[in-house]
Order: sequence, then C-alpha cells, then structure tokens
Amino acid sequence: MIRVAVAGASGYMGRFHDLDPEWLAGVADVVFFALPHMESQKAVPVLCGHGGRAIDLSADYRLHDADDYVTWYKAPHTDLPGLAEAVYGLPELHRKAIAPASLVASPGCYPAGAVLATAPLLRSGLARLDGIVIDGKSGITGAGAQGRKIDPMYLFTEANENVQAYGIAAHRHTPEIEQELSALAGAPLRVAFTPHLLPLNRGLFTTASVPLATALTTSRLLDVYREFYAGEPFVRVLDAGERPTTRAVVGSNYCDVTVVADPRTGRAVCVSAIDNLGKGGAANGVQNLNVMCGWSERTGLEAPPVYP
Amino acid sequence: MIRVAVAGASGYMGRFHDLDPEWLAGVADVVFFALPHMESQKAVPVLCGHGGRAIDLSADYRLHDADDYVTWYKAPHTDLPGLAEAVYGLPELHRKAIAPASLVASPGCYPAGAVLATAPLLRSGLARLDGIVIDGKSGITGAGAQGRKIDPMYLFTEANENVQAYGIAAHRHTPEIEQELSALAGAPLRVAFTPHLLPLNRGLFTTASVPLATALTTSRLLDVYREFYAGEPFVRVLDAGERPTTRAVVGSNYCDVTVVADPRTGRAVCVSAIDNLGKGGAANGVQNLNVMCGWSERTGLEAPPVYP
Amino acid sequence: MIRVAVAGASGYMGRFHDLDPEWLAGVADVVFFALPHMESQKAVPVLCGHGGRAIDLSADYRLHDADDYVTWYKAPHTDLPGLAEAVYGLPELHRKAIAPASLVASPGCYPAGAVLATAPLLRSGLARLDGIVIDGKSGITGAGAQGRKIDPMYLFTEANENVQAYGIAAHRHTPEIEQELSALAGAPLRVAFTPHLLPLNRGLFTTASVPLATALTTSRLLDVYREFYAGEPFVRVLDAGERPTTRAVVGSNYCDVTVVADPRTGRAVCVSAIDNLGKGGAANGVQNLNVMCGWSERTGLEAPPVYP
Amino acid sequence: MIRVAVAGASGYMGRFHDLDPEWLAGVADVVFFALPHMESQKAVPVLCGHGGRAIDLSADYRLHDADDYVTWYKAPHTDLPGLAEAVYGLPELHRKAIAPASLVASPGCYPAGAVLATAPLLRSGLARLDGIVIDGKSGITGAGAQGRKIDPMYLFTEANENVQAYGIAAHRHTPEIEQELSALAGAPLRVAFTPHLLPLNRGLFTTASVPLATALTTSRLLDVYREFYAGEPFVRVLDAGERPTTRAVVGSNYCDVTVVADPRTGRAVCVSAIDNLGKGGAANGVQNLNVMCGWSERTGLEAPPVYP
Repeated sequence: MIRVAVAGASGYMGRFHDLDPEWLAGVADVVFFALPHMESQKAVPVLCGHGGRAIDLSADYRLHDADDYVTWYKAPHTDLPGLAEAVYGLPELHRKAIAPASLVASPGCYPAGAVLATAPLLRSGLARLDGIVIDGKSGITGAGAQGRKIDPMYLFTEANENVQAYGIAAHRHTPEIEQELSALAGAPLRVAFTPHLLPLNRGLFTTASVPLATALTTSRLLDVYREFYAGEPFVRVLDAGERPTTRAVVGSNYCDVTVVADPRTGRAVCVSAIDNLGKGGAANGVQNLNVMCGWSERTGLEAPPVYP
Repeated sequence: MIRVAVAGASGYMGRFHDLDPEWLAGVADVVFFALPHMESQKAVPVLCGHGGRAIDLSADYRLHDADDYVTWYKAPHTDLPGLAEAVYGLPELHRKAIAPASLVASPGCYPAGAVLATAPLLRSGLARLDGIVIDGKSGITGAGAQGRKIDPMYLFTEANENVQAYGIAAHRHTPEIEQELSALAGAPLRVAFTPHLLPLNRGLFTTASVPLATALTTSRLLDVYREFYAGEPFVRVLDAGERPTTRAVVGSNYCDVTVVADPRTGRAVCVSAIDNLGKGGAANGVQNLNVMCGWSERTGLEAPPVYP
Repeated sequence: MIRVAVAGASGYMGRFHDLDPEWLAGVADVVFFALPHMESQKAVPVLCGHGGRAIDLSADYRLHDADDYVTWYKAPHTDLPGLAEAVYGLPELHRKAIAPASLVASPGCYPAGAVLATAPLLRSGLARLDGIVIDGKSGITGAGAQGRKIDPMYLFTEANENVQAYGIAAHRHTPEIEQELSALAGAPLRVAFTPHLLPLNRGLFTTASVPLATALTTSRLLDVYREFYAGEPFVRVLDAGERPTTRAVVGSNYCDVTVVADPRTGRAVCVSAIDNLGKGGAANGVQNLNVMCGWSERTGLEAPPVYP
Repeated sequence: MIRVAVAGASGYMGRFHDLDPEWLAGVADVVFFALPHMESQKAVPVLCGHGGRAIDLSADYRLHDADDYVTWYKAPHTDLPGLAEAVYGLPELHRKAIAPASLVASPGCYPAGAVLATAPLLRSGLARLDGIVIDGKSGITGAGAQGRKIDPMYLFTEANENVQAYGIAAHRHTPEIEQELSALAGAPLRVAFTPHLLPLNRGLFTTASVPLATALTTSRLLDVYREFYAGEPFVRVLDAGERPTTRAVVGSNYCDVTVVADPRTGRAVCVSAIDNLGKGGAANGVQNLNVMCGWSERTGLEAPPVYP
C-alpha cells in the first residue's frame, strides 16, 4: 500500500493538521504540495530529508537554473540541492526520470500547453529556433487558487464579456517554456510569450508560431507529431482539418494538439487545448504520481471530459 | 441635406424595397452596402455608375490586387474598375483619400484590429518585416451576420466555455492585413495570422509580435504610437502598465492600443482592443460616412462604451 | 451478466445499427431509448413484447392519463398498454416499482427539479394544495439534443447575456409535475409553472412557492425534508442558511434541496439545484438502471461534480 | 440653466470634492446621491435644508413607513421629515408628484421590474391580493457597486455557469414592492418574493404569478396593460406570443412587459425585462431628473439598447 497526502495552505476548506513536513514523511509515502511558491521550498526539503517523496505543484522547483529563479521570482532560492535534484513533471518528456524521482515539479499551466504543442517540432530538428512566438489563452481558474483571488480583475463583472493580455513580455512561465524547449532542441532558445485571460472557467488554448528550417507540408508535420506522441495515454494528435477546442478536454487530463504548415510564411502553427486544472494542473500531478508509483498512468484519470 | 441609405440582403428584419442600386442612386447620396461578398460587386458599380457614393461593408473592394482576390476568394472579381478606384476605409490611414471617394471599402474586423495595433511601428521603420506573427481573438458576433449563421459551431452550447483557433494559415483577412502593413512599411511583407473564436458577444483583441530592427524601450515605442495617433478621435494609446481590454470599448468606435518592448527577444508586443461591430464594423463605416460628408468624425458615434 | 444498449435517433454521431427493437430485445437485457416523443411509443412496445426492458428518456410514458397526453402533446397515444404499465422513473419516489419494472419513464428535467424540491412538503400534509407556483430556470442544454437544435434562440449571440421565460402557461412538463405532486398529496392539484432559459450550459434551478396549511418554522420544515430524504444517495438537504447552487451539482446525479419558511406570507420557499443532464436527464436514467438490475445505485455515478 | 451634480462615496474613480451637501446646494440645483443607505439620510436633509433638490439612489427614502424601515434595515431612520416628504421615483406611477418634488427616491432594481410587471393588473381590480408570488432574476451588476463588491460570491469562477436564489424570504426589496402594489390595489397586500443571481452582467427579469379575481383571457389582460401604459416613453407592452428578453433592453431605460392568462390555475403570469442599471438604476434616475426639470423624458436616454 502506498500512502498519499496533500499539503496545502490553510484555506476556506478548513485546516486538518498543521503543515508539518516531518510528520508528513512519517504518515505518507508521496505528498502533493499545493503551496505558494517560496513556501514550497521551505517544506519540501524537510519532507525529502526524512525520506518522503514530493510532487510540488508550485513554481519552486520547475527551473533548473537558480539564476533564472532569481531573475523571474525576484528572490534567491533557499533549497539549491532540491532544485538540482527535481525532475520536471511532464511525463510525455521525462517519464523515465519521474519514475524513481523523490521530487517532481509539476509544470505551470501555460508551459504544459506550450511545450506539448511544440515539443515534437523542436525535437525533430525541423524548426528554426529564432522567432518562436507563443500566445496563451487561459480561463479564469488559471489565475491562482481557482480564481478565488480577491482582485477586481477576477470579479464576474470585470472578467465576463472581456478579453485582455497581461504580464506582457514578463510572465514567469516564460523561462519554464524556454528551459523545456531548449532541452528538446538541444540549443538555447527564447520565446516571445504572451498570456491572455478569457471569460471561461476552465480551459487553456495555446497558439505557437514556429519558423521552419525547411519547406514542409502539414501532412509531414503531423507524422512527426504522431510519432512523437505514439502510445501517450493523454495526448491526442488531431488530423488535418480537425481543430483542438478546450471544450473537448475540460474535466480531463487530455491534451489535444495539431499542427498546420503555413508555406506563405515558412512557419508552422502549433496549437494545443488542455484543461488548465487538468493537464495544466492537478490531473497532470496525478499522472506523475502514477508514474512514480508504477501504476497505470490512467489510474484516477478515467473520467471523460465533461461535454458540454 | 445629404441622404443616406443602407442596402442589405433581405433577412429576418423584412424587406423594405427590392435591392435596386439604380433606384438607390436616385434617392440617396451615400449608400451603405451590407451584402455578402460577390453580391456587392454586382450592386456597387450600378450605384456608382449612376453617381451614387458607396460604403461597402463586404470584402469585395478591400484588396487592391485582383489576383489576391482570386487567390483568397476563389473567384474572379467582376468589377475591376471599382476595385481600382476603391479606397480602403480606415480613416486613421486613408482619411484624405476617403473624403472625396465615391467607393470606400470598410475593413474587416481582424484587419482593423491588427492594422491599428501595428501601424505606427511599421510606418516608423523600426520594425523588421520578416517574422511578424498576429493572433486575433474575436467574439461570436464576428462570425458573420451577428453570429446568426445556422452552424452548430455558433450554438451557445458549443461556443460557451470554449476557445478555439480556426482558419489556421488560411483566413481571408490575412491579405488585407498584409496589404495595409506593406503599404505602411513601404515594402512587401507577410504575416502569420491566426484567428480565434472566444465566448463573448462582442470584442476583438489583437496580439501582434513584431521583430524590432534595433533595441528600443517601451517608452520610445509609446512615443512613436502617440505621435502617429495624435489627434485621432477614436484611437486611445494607453500608457505603460495600462492594458487594453475589449470591455473598455464595447458599444463604441474606440480602439485602445499599446505596445511593450521585449528586449529578451528583440521584439515588440503590439496589442489592440476594438468592438468587432464598432471599429471593426458598422461604427467604422459611420466614421467613413462622416469623413466623406465633411462632418465631424464623431457624428453619430458619441455614445460611450457600455460598461460593464 | 446484464447487457445494456442505447437506442437513439441517427444523428451526427453516426448510425451503428438500424433502430430495430426486436433485434435489440435479442442482444440487450435493458435498453435506453433516447428518441423523440411519438417515436418511442412505436419502438418500446416491440422491445417489451419480445421480453426486453426499457428505460425511456422521452416524454411518451411519463403521464399515466392518456387524455393528459392528448391534451399536452396534441396527438393520441398509440401504446395504451405500455402507458398503463410504465413506472415514473424517479427512484426517490418509486424505487420499489422501478426495481421489477419492464418499462421505466425517466422524468423530464423540470419535473425532476420541481418534484424533488417539493415532494417532502406535499407528502407531509403540511401544504395547502391551491396556489402552488413553480419557477424553473434551465441552462441551454435543457433545450433538447444538448442544445444542438438549429433555432436562432439557441445561438450563442442570442442566448448569451440574456434571460427569458418561454412556454408561459403552456409547458408540457406541467402535467408531469402535477401528476407526481398530486400523488404525493393524495389529492389533485395544479401548479402555475413557468420555465426560463438562462445563459449557462448545464444546470437547472427550481424555486417553488408552496402555501402552508399552518404556521411552521424553517427548522421544522427542514426536519420534514431530512426525514423524507434519509438514506437517499443523491439528494442532499442543505442546512438553514446554506443555499443550493447549480455549480455544486454540475456533472453529477446530485440534487441539492432546501426549504425556507416565510411566515409573512404563510408560504414555504422550496428550492432545488440539479444538472439537467444529470439528475434531470441521463444520470437519473442510469440510477434507474441500477435499481432495475439490483446494483448499487451509485454504480457509474461516482464521479464528483466538476467544480468550478 | 439647471445645474446637476452627482454625489457618491469616494471610490476607485478618485475623489473630486469632499462630500459636502451644503456646498452642493450652492453649486447644483439637482443632486444625484449615489451613497450607501444610512449615508444618504445624513446628507440629503442638509442639501434639501439649503434649498437643493435630491434624487436619491439608495434605499433610504423608498419606504414611506418608518417602522418598515426599522424592520428591514435594522436601524431607526434619522430623517423622518425627509421620509415623509420623499416621492417614490417611478415616473410611470408617480409622474405628477415627482415633477415638483424636492426629494425623489429612485426605486430598487427588483421593485422597478416587479412593479412595472404587475401594476396594471393590480390597479385594474382584476387581481386577488392573496397569493402573489414574484420571482426576480438579476445579472451580477445588481449586486451593488457594479458587482465590484469583494466577496467570493461575485468572483467570475463562482458566478459563471451558476444560478442560485439568495435572500430567500428576507430580501429588503420586498417591502418596497408591497408598498407600491398595495397603493395600486388600494388595500394592503403581501408578496412572496425570491431574488436570484444569474451569470450575466446586466439584465433583470421578473416573473410574477398573480391570482385573478375572475376568469380572463390573455387578450383582455393585454388590453388592460396597453391602456395603463399608453403614452409611456419607456414601457413597451409586447403582443401575445412575444416574449420579453433582457437582451432587448440592455443599455437602455426600456421596460418590456407582457402578461399571459393561465385559465388552468386562475392566475396571470406577468413578466418584465429591464436593465438593472437602466430602468432598474441610473437611467430611471435620469428620467426622474427630466420629469423634475420639465424636460422631455427621453433627454439623455435616446441611446438604443446594445444588441447583441
């Protein structure tokens, strides 16, 4: 039997036990940490130091480079050994490293969508690395704590019937995307990433424009995607002419992706749809748990999307 | 006294008079044509041939190049003289030509948003012309006939709580954007344009990523925008830190724009918010009428945005 | 092993087998019929005549009185024996009759919400039967076929940001509500029922105003409700001060109810929240299946509501 | 020239001048007070004492009976002379008294909708006064301060895709409705009123069920309504078969109403649709201003509804 626990900040659901990572190490084999960043890096090393395994849902262990952390989070990281050891928790890229890991950093919602939309193309060597532009569009639950943040921006009458960009040229998920795409490409790259807030509860849609190194057809690109994601339980590569929609994945861990060649501009348009609370959040964390425990990756994730 | 008429397809509002452009030329000085493309190019030359002036809201007279029309609309244009004579009806760019014109082609909604978001930068010579990526996000009324098209995609239960890209690498507004931006830049350019459908009635948000020819600050870019739009009655350049939102312009002819430099990628992020039925549609048509008649451009467009 | 089938009209999902109820009786033990009314009464008797058991989701077998059928559906019923035999498929009221039934008529969405909101009060003898007013509020999927009906009323741009009543004093779910409430009260009664269409995908909220025969407190009424629903797996009686919301039940078979005494008017306000596709639709049908097969009533209905 | 001012609580729009009603009396002839209740009754008597005229948008002067105020607002009223003098600001009922008034209390949003839906029937003597049930459904801006209240209930992710009743048997707009309907009927009456919160920005729909004293047809009831509202600039009585929708009035001061006889229950269903910020709020206040100043009642209220 494997014992699993969830450690969160005391919130409106009530506090069941003081947050005590040493105690947690004794009562649970794997612990999900649903803490704000800066808080996770205090609790996680205590748990791991006592033999516990952690799945961290905060941003604290996603960036391998401690300098990047300082640059984007404006504070030094206080658990450098943990940072060095942590595995980026996207099973489609790091399944083998996740399985034995003691510390897994589950991705941010935008990086999950952006990386899954473009990974096959960057791994293939068919992309040029300069000039990648990524546009992220998120439902309001993406805005932290299920959108319960007390900020006028998240009020119904402000968010409803509205669209806006935010964090322009400054969003903290940018280095996370660059880290993973650079690793796939085998060379450092930068992305121009702009996040947007849309009037829906759940759903995250990513539109990435990637320059191609050579002229390619949509059909050829789709072959690359299908090969890359062959056997993946939660990534569905749609056929030419089919379009991902967030509606088709809400309530699930699925990621729908497709790619279209644009010969006029020499670019590919790579799109993905996820539930930001699913593949972009807690459900992906459960998939990590399944990998870490050697269970079927579908365990606990069988419920189909809720449609409509 | 100037007499104005609107000529539309007979629809659910009833038919008041058979569509007879010759008759219209006798009873009206300026006629709005709200017909499907391919229909406008039949009616407009009759009206103009009888001395009438036309503001065409269809796509028929927006592209100057008849070959472009064939490429994107899959049919030859039957009024080449009209096409040659038509003025692109964006007053911020073509006010002087619109004033005396007998045929004005009011822009598509996506081009209105995309061109206003990027025009100052392209005119300034500060942009590189290769690698421009534009992401358009439209409310459902953008989908023709106030979204009354009978297609499952536009049903509430399909569009609500959903986001999707469509017309990927193939949307007909693309050449319109390229035509206007090329003219501003003084050199041919192509854009990678992807439109999206969002769950709101009105509102069109544009996010454009434009490579910079040289390192520039946001402040410097904003100066360029403020100078370009100085005196414009309907374009509001927001300050650094302010963000356009569609909510702030819905129900009006306003276009809110801003620009942010991204020194990490050597690009600028240019964003605009319009009402697709306002600056992206009928209200912009009324502004054209005002220019053509020598009236104050605010005539009939004084109502403030409806907020919230 | 019990074999279960679903028989629906050929639709956009493709046709798997011609609708042949005799064949179905051979391959399935229980068949869900998801046909339009008037169609079900043709197919169901064939299935039952060949020994099959049916759960009918249409309106064809809900009314016990054939004259009521004619009055509200404007056509004679062609399967009077089936009508006489059918059991109204609300397990909270008719569990014992459902278990052995060969034909179960799953309720309409409004009746499910209205009956569950008021049943304890009417059964208790504490209500006056004259002057009951019921207001139903439904999401757009309530409008048939998951709202895929091709009618402008269901278009996003018509339904979004809109509220309206429809079928005023004429909705076909009215006699269904009256039949069940009359049976509970032991005397014929009529209800003034008005349905409304609201801008959400799923969710049905019922507000019923029931005159009280005597002065009662909210606390006393809640005791009546708790006793009536004791042990029910899917009805949750909320405490005084708690309010049902459709959000708390969407995606599930739950029905949240509560009741408030209004001593000023001598009435009780009875409210319920269901998912019109859950307890008001297919999920309730599955609960019927479980009862008919002697399975745990939660089988296949364990997924929690999707929140938010 | 008549000088008009608006006095509000200092809010996010900045403070232009300390709230000083004595000073206001010197600089303005008519002052709108947009203050919380309890605050208005402090400021208004000072203004009126110095010869100013007030249009109060709070709840402070709507109830004629000071005891009712204590009962529903849990505090004594501190300006009893003002309370005695105030005119209820619904021009359709009190135009003659509003014209010369020095203090006009603009109605709450629910009362505006409920009273306009039922006034003709209650004035006609055709209704029974016992057993009136009124169901109000409001967009989120109805929830105070354009919904900018910092309460989780008003967050997008809580309010979106949700319906709920609130203030059951306890909403403060109830006595306001009863006061006006009692006056119309010429006898005291009580209403069972339940408000609801719906996922839209603006719009308030009222469904009232009123017992009839005698059997009447829809046609006869509509005649009563048309006669009652003859000449009203902002009330539109819809024909049999037409249904009010909030969409048709949003952004305007219009109130669409209709009535349907229900011979089965001996009741009438009276429905109305208003914009809670229009006829249910500020626009109705402007209509009061027009009446008080002898201007056309349409002054400043000419903008058509924004549709869709």
